[in-house]
Amino acid sequence: MTHKVIHKPDPKDILEAADRIKGFVNHTPVMSSRFINGIVNAHVFFKCENFQKVGAFKARGAINAVLSMASDQKACGVATHSSGNHAQALSFAASGINVPAYVVMPSNSSRVKVDAVKGYGGKITFCEPTLEAREETLRQVIRETGATEIHPYNNLRIIAGQATAALELIHEINDLDMIFAPVGGGGLLSGTALATHYFHTEAQVIGAEPDQANDAYLSFTQKRFIPSVNPVTIADGLRTSLGPITFPIILDHVHSIVTVSEESIVNAMRMIWERMKIIIEPSSAVPVAALLKKTIDYKGKRIGVILSGGNVDLDQLPWKKF
Amino acid sequence: MTHKVIHKPDPKDILEAADRIKGFVNHTPVMSSRFINGIVNAHVFFKCENFQKVGAFKARGAINAVLSMASDQKACGVATHSSGNHAQALSFAASGINVPAYVVMPSNSSRVKVDAVKGYGGKITFCEPTLEAREETLRQVIRETGATEIHPYNNLRIIAGQATAALELIHEINDLDMIFAPVGGGGLLSGTALATHYFHTEAQVIGAEPDQANDAYLSFTQKRFIPSVNPVTIADGLRTSLGPITFPIILDHVHSIVTVSEESIVNAMRMIWERMKIIIEPSSAVPVAALLKKTIDYKGKRIGVILSGGNVDLDQLPWKKF
Repeated sequence: MTHKVIHKPDPKDILEAADRIKGFVNHTPVMSSRFINGIVNAHVFFKCENFQKVGAFKARGAINAVLSMASDQKACGVATHSSGNHAQALSFAASGINVPAYVVMPSNSSRVKVDAVKGYGGKITFCEPTLEAREETLRQVIRETGATEIHPYNNLRIIAGQATAALELIHEINDLDMIFAPVGGGGLLSGTALATHYFHTEAQVIGAEPDQANDAYLSFTQKRFIPSVNPVTIADGLRTSLGPITFPIILDHVHSIVTVSEESIVNAMRMIWERMKIIIEPSSAVPVAALLKKTIDYKGKRIGVILSGGNVDLDQLPWKKF
Repeated sequence: MTHKVIHKPDPKDILEAADRIKGFVNHTPVMSSRFINGIVNAHVFFKCENFQKVGAFKARGAINAVLSMASDQKACGVATHSSGNHAQALSFAASGINVPAYVVMPSNSSRVKVDAVKGYGGKITFCEPTLEAREETLRQVIRETGATEIHPYNNLRIIAGQATAALELIHEINDLDMIFAPVGGGGLLSGTALATHYFHTEAQVIGAEPDQANDAYLSFTQKRFIPSVNPVTIADGLRTSLGPITFPIILDHVHSIVTVSEESIVNAMRMIWERMKIIIEPSSAVPVAALLKKTIDYKGKRIGVILSGGNVDLDQLPWKKF
């Protein structure tokens, strides 16, 4: 008997994920802005995952993970601890096919987020707002229900699902020279890097990260895992650290990681709202800010940018801060 | 010699306008929202003119009007008095083909609007913020420059240009039962009604207007022209009154006019931002509010809605008001 250690999704996993989630997710549009093309002197193609189900790319991975489960697993449900888009995505993915979704949320979660998870059919257990309490409460929920934990990024099926955004972009836009994606836990960036590596080897994949949550940049450049410690950034989707599955993929297949200031994130977000008339969340503005930082000469290049989501509290907009 | 009085654009005028402006305007996308479909129990197709050049459908009419001019007229330029999207659209249309655009703006215009007109290449003359001063200053500019006045809506080429938005919608989405469009001066509504009448006779065209600027509703129902007097509405694009060309077309070809409250406009605007992740201005939210008012049973119907523009000052959002 051979023992096979699976380190990363292979091309078949990504193609099967794309096939599996079709009909459950949106094939999101690719948009351009002549104004932004002019600023960077290049052709920029924005993959609009802000138009994805639940308002973020997270729907792709969650749906792939839930649909991949065996039927006896499905009966017991899925579980996670999250206060962000993954909680909504998992609730949406599971309840859509009558699988229970148990979500552990910190007691100080905003009502907007709690209502969103409830709205998608998630069953919420509240806990103290510490990582320890979240993990312990999740273990308890799993003991009681037999639910399967679906980690937000350190999960092969999640990564294969997130990879389908870049797959669609590559199929639609020929000859990209580079693709920018944000990096938090690394699910989207590792999936983007794999899809690009397997299906379009010429393009460089560039991660974008807040200066103030630069664990991926440090880990990548020092080639050893360095977790983030209580990062403070407006890009709330990018506060997590890389995981043991995502980090090696990123080391192998990502070209570079660019970090950006908080002010540049807010300015990039506002530019996209004003010029493209679409709503993106701060995490989505991070690769835009990285692009606008122009660390290299893009002249005439064809550049993809993954706009990861559009979930924003319209009562708490950041313009006034800077 | 026969004398022909032209009351309205004919089918050829609209088809020629579509052909003339191609390459200068965006063929804007049509979007849907499962959430909104669920609320109204119908299939709703949003024609996204917020993604149009200069952020509003006004680019269509302005470009058609400017491109239709004789070359000696072009040399002297075009002129208008406006503080809104028409000023930007005319500046964009004219300066794009090296025609001077003279725009008379009231001295209390917001800096955002002044900068936008300047940014599109318009030459601004400021005047006192009264209609009399605007008209007198415009006459003076025209005397000095020989420029041709391009009225924002009471102009056959403007109407033919605005009609091309509905034309694209009708070509892309089959079998619409009704089409909602906002009504201010009536350029967009009359163009929409004509395009629908000529090229898709089955659909009803419904105008949408703020309660607090209901001159078109009053004029339409009483079949006589009743101007608005200092209307106060958040829908700043809809404060103008119908004109002698637009009113008869609307009387002949529009099915009904629905009026909506200020609160419902803001709520509809916020719903589109939150659910569809796109930015629309208050005037665009008026037909959405009219749709959501559900004055008739839409069950199973196919409904087009023209989202007229997306120019919003992000520092002055209206959520807090209600």
